[in-house]
Amino acid sequence: MKMNAEFVGAVAQVDRAVTQPFPNSTKVYAEGSRPDIQVPMREITQSEMPASLGPTEKNPPIYVYDTSGPYTDPTCKIDVRSGLPPLREPWILERNDTEGLPGPSSEYGRTRLTDPALAALRFQLTRKPRRAKRGMNVTQMHYARRGVITPEMEFISIRENQRREDLGELLTQQHPGEGFGAGIPPVITPEFVRSEVARGRAIIPANINHPESEPMIIGRNFLVKINANIGNSAVTSSIQEEVEKMTWAIRWGGDTVMDLSTGKHIHETREWIIRNSPVPIGTVPIYQALEKVGGKAEELTWEIFRDTLIEQAEQGVDYFTIHAGVRLAYIPLTARRMTGIVSRGGSIMAKWCLAHHRESFLYTHFEEICEIMKAYDVSFSLGDGLRPGSIYDANDEAQFAELQTLGELTQVAWKHDVQTMIEGPGHIPMHLIKINMEKQLEECGEAPFYTLGPLTTDIAPGYDHITSAIGAAMIGWYGCAMLCYVTPKEHLGLPDKDDVKDGIIAYKIAAHAADLAKGHPGAQIRDNALSKARFEFRWVDQFNLGLDPDRARALHDETLPAEGAKVAHFCSMCGPHFCSMKITQDVRDYAASHGIPESEAWRRGCRPRQRSL
Amino acid sequence: MKMNAEFVGAVAQVDRAVTQPFPNSTKVYAEGSRPDIQVPMREITQSEMPASLGPTEKNPPIYVYDTSGPYTDPTCKIDVRSGLPPLREPWILERNDTEGLPGPSSEYGRTRLTDPALAALRFQLTRKPRRAKRGMNVTQMHYARRGVITPEMEFISIRENQRREDLGELLTQQHPGEGFGAGIPPVITPEFVRSEVARGRAIIPANINHPESEPMIIGRNFLVKINANIGNSAVTSSIQEEVEKMTWAIRWGGDTVMDLSTGKHIHETREWIIRNSPVPIGTVPIYQALEKVGGKAEELTWEIFRDTLIEQAEQGVDYFTIHAGVRLAYIPLTARRMTGIVSRGGSIMAKWCLAHHRESFLYTHFEEICEIMKAYDVSFSLGDGLRPGSIYDANDEAQFAELQTLGELTQVAWKHDVQTMIEGPGHIPMHLIKINMEKQLEECGEAPFYTLGPLTTDIAPGYDHITSAIGAAMIGWYGCAMLCYVTPKEHLGLPDKDDVKDGIIAYKIAAHAADLAKGHPGAQIRDNALSKARFEFRWVDQFNLGLDPDRARALHDETLPAEGAKVAHFCSMCGPHFCSMKITQDVRDYAASHGIPESEAWRRGCRPRQRSL
Repeated sequence: MKMNAEFVGAVAQVDRAVTQPFPNSTKVYAEGSRPDIQVPMREITQSEMPASLGPTEKNPPIYVYDTSGPYTDPTCKIDVRSGLPPLREPWILERNDTEGLPGPSSEYGRTRLTDPALAALRFQLTRKPRRAKRGMNVTQMHYARRGVITPEMEFISIRENQRREDLGELLTQQHPGEGFGAGIPPVITPEFVRSEVARGRAIIPANINHPESEPMIIGRNFLVKINANIGNSAVTSSIQEEVEKMTWAIRWGGDTVMDLSTGKHIHETREWIIRNSPVPIGTVPIYQALEKVGGKAEELTWEIFRDTLIEQAEQGVDYFTIHAGVRLAYIPLTARRMTGIVSRGGSIMAKWCLAHHRESFLYTHFEEICEIMKAYDVSFSLGDGLRPGSIYDANDEAQFAELQTLGELTQVAWKHDVQTMIEGPGHIPMHLIKINMEKQLEECGEAPFYTLGPLTTDIAPGYDHITSAIGAAMIGWYGCAMLCYVTPKEHLGLPDKDDVKDGIIAYKIAAHAADLAKGHPGAQIRDNALSKARFEFRWVDQFNLGLDPDRARALHDETLPAEGAKVAHFCSMCGPHFCSMKITQDVRDYAASHGIPESEAWRRGCRPRQRSL
Repeated sequence: MKMNAEFVGAVAQVDRAVTQPFPNSTKVYAEGSRPDIQVPMREITQSEMPASLGPTEKNPPIYVYDTSGPYTDPTCKIDVRSGLPPLREPWILERNDTEGLPGPSSEYGRTRLTDPALAALRFQLTRKPRRAKRGMNVTQMHYARRGVITPEMEFISIRENQRREDLGELLTQQHPGEGFGAGIPPVITPEFVRSEVARGRAIIPANINHPESEPMIIGRNFLVKINANIGNSAVTSSIQEEVEKMTWAIRWGGDTVMDLSTGKHIHETREWIIRNSPVPIGTVPIYQALEKVGGKAEELTWEIFRDTLIEQAEQGVDYFTIHAGVRLAYIPLTARRMTGIVSRGGSIMAKWCLAHHRESFLYTHFEEICEIMKAYDVSFSLGDGLRPGSIYDANDEAQFAELQTLGELTQVAWKHDVQTMIEGPGHIPMHLIKINMEKQLEECGEAPFYTLGPLTTDIAPGYDHITSAIGAAMIGWYGCAMLCYVTPKEHLGLPDKDDVKDGIIAYKIAAHAADLAKGHPGAQIRDNALSKARFEFRWVDQFNLGLDPDRARALHDETLPAEGAKVAHFCSMCGPHFCSMKITQDVRDYAASHGIPESEAWRRGCRPRQRSL
């Protein structure tokens, strides 16, 4: 047991890399209808257009969606030992439908809290857990269906719009998208957020015991989101590493984080992560339940699982993956697969079902699970325990049989006003991706889809962030609401910080490519601004507007390290006499200064570029 | 001038990394109808299924397409100073339609050959250049149209089939694809190759002065190919580095290589590359022509360009990018773009056109260019000089106007039996990719499309191998025949060896994902074999069947470095008690050993897995 005072001291400092603001970036807050609605954004300032390219003009700051929380706000004092400020606490309290508990109501939570051996690695939480008052339902869906617009919903509407109103025509112009039936309005209003949540087409993962989280939404009519998985296993990784991975993941753009720990100290690891996370945290409770029975799936019981749900709900987990769709009759459908059952949760439940020869307690107790979910506003992420683990197994009978059951369970959850999303595969060749999305929308009443990739080929271990970013971009375009990242370590090992970053960036790319293709309003602003910077040889702006300014600059440095090259009107690819961008400018100047034929083409073509800024 | 004896000595050794065979891999040759048709493949041997998973069974060797040439054949002696053996020479000679020249017939070629200052860095070629006999046409298309099946065509047919006949049902089973009108036969015959080339739907880049090249084909009804760009610039990189990049690119799967050098010693660099390249080499001759006029585009002339074409054709360049579609009237259509003209060739020609206010010599002399092409069998790669350089500019009037002209020029080239492919963009949001493919097929009579990416977003400088692999996979699926890679350095600097590898692997993934989605016969074999190895915990086989065995093993080592872990029945993600693959096997065993209900689902599901090997 090395995680002790040393551990606590260490994590209090490790995050220096994540508390650096991005270059030329400032954390700004857009205020909502009340002063305690402060929506964070990252403002990236740009330099002026170089005088050599024409009359000097200012380039406006660009606002980008910011998942990094207080970590990138220099005015916030970060101390992981005390956790983040509970920004949603007043909203939760003023609703007056929850009550503080004297302490954890789960048996396991109480045991861990009082075990002196754990004192050294326990997060020192002073706040007590809360729960819905008897008979109350505290889900955002419940409020939405009663017509209430919560502060969370307003926060989200401001966040999704990304303050694009003053940017002018050149930067805001974009291609009309192809949405495959999506209904994205030009401006996201709080009422639109409410209506989508009420309809079940979007979820706001926001456990009342995770007041530190900045509200966000997952739904096909909003920006496509990405999830980063972290978590230790019996083999490797410590609490400290997991907290670091979480802060690292959100720095680069993770919208939610799943803690998939399976090793020792799952409970304590999770507490540290949640208390320091500004993004929703998801878990797979069956992993911990299995630990409690010594890894013997057949010894799992509803009571142990139920206690685990309450334990985690009272810590503040925002969504639970529950593999309730693994029905007894579907299991043998996997026997002829190339790779059987690859979902950990799915295989645990399959083993249980076969051992007892009956339906799983997740399925038979589903309504009781709903009762727990709605007492804390934990959202369902209905797990696809029978997802394919190889191209060979894609889109088979087992997979689609389970999807149908997930659709039925969605209706049950919605009856309880419990927010629900549906997990999806996995491994799918490109031409079979769309049918997955279509079937999901149809079977599950447009509940948000949340897929792992999909990987479009199996032949590139070590590069599955790329094999899967291809599939993720496509399914995001088709309507998937959140993309679960895959790192280069997939199938090979446990991701470290570098892998987490590689996975996140690949998925930010996929999600953004999907937003562009769907025609999400404002999605093209960042592309336009970056391309304009590129054309004008504003190298530093080009770096800073990108997803990873550090790497862009580093790669430029490899060829042209001199600071002067960052303002040079050429690049290393072509050299000073050969730059096509430079020649284009010459063409433009030439066209402007010479007699231009009167043909329609010339007249249309040579109209000055729109400069609406 | 550092490149001298030292240079020559150095390159003779640098390629040690590329002469290592891949692990558990052997270079094998499939013989054609005559003993001098020896088609290289990489045979990857596999271990037996672990006894713990059932009765021991052998896993057959898997054959994969091999672009690495003699470098990975330990029986070949590699010495870059003497170049590769000219395997196609007898085929060229026996056709008896070419003649040996006394020396270079281009003025520039003669000058370089006799300049004593260049002696130290000149490749010592003893062979003289060849040219078609007067009145002869030596293109593969010309032969094909006369009904001749050349040894090149037979070589290709064997190569494309990848020796899959004995692999059995489990490994060869695959999803029916969606080909969007592709017509891929179950087996590629020499006659099919001939007919596709005759029809103009595929090209075989095979200059008679590059007899070292191993025949390959580019067409929508064949495996999707990838190209790697290399080349120095005025700013950086040496001959030696470029030769290294070429051998590195083909090791990882580059099907062709373009030498885009723009710096000093273009001529000599190219000679070294071609003499040592088993894959077709492409160039953009206007780059060198521009060097010859000191970088002043307006001083370019048809005569200088013509001499450059002959110079390069006699060195053995297999395809030329010619931007003959940049017509005067289209240039002003680019003035309102966000990023103007980004193609280097396109901007050079645009500048020339504006300076002279007339159509470019590439357009007006197009038939004379065809005469040169057919005398050496150089293929056209009709350049898209007006391709978009940003999402903003995608699919605009300038781009599609040029495409129409490229279609007209294709007909002219085909009149001369000159093989032709068409270059395409660039930057395109996902939902606008398909229309690019459809327009190209329609305008250009199904001549092969060869696109750069496309990049699906502009916001990730440093990661454009990923932004573009997404678009490349999609357009490959839709019918694109060859994908020009993009490296992480795109927009930022000149790729080094690591960047080349990253670009290649991303594009091998894209091309393979496309083959799977098109349903290319046999495409799924490698996925199936790798997934089977994965399921059976044959870690080493999993590494070796992947695109990059070194990296797969290295990533596995990061978590579980012990050699024993390479045969362990668990992985670091879950630990020994928790592996879903292991549990699946338990499920399977359980199902097999217990009484199974008589329901139809159970009976169907529990039939033993097909084991046809």
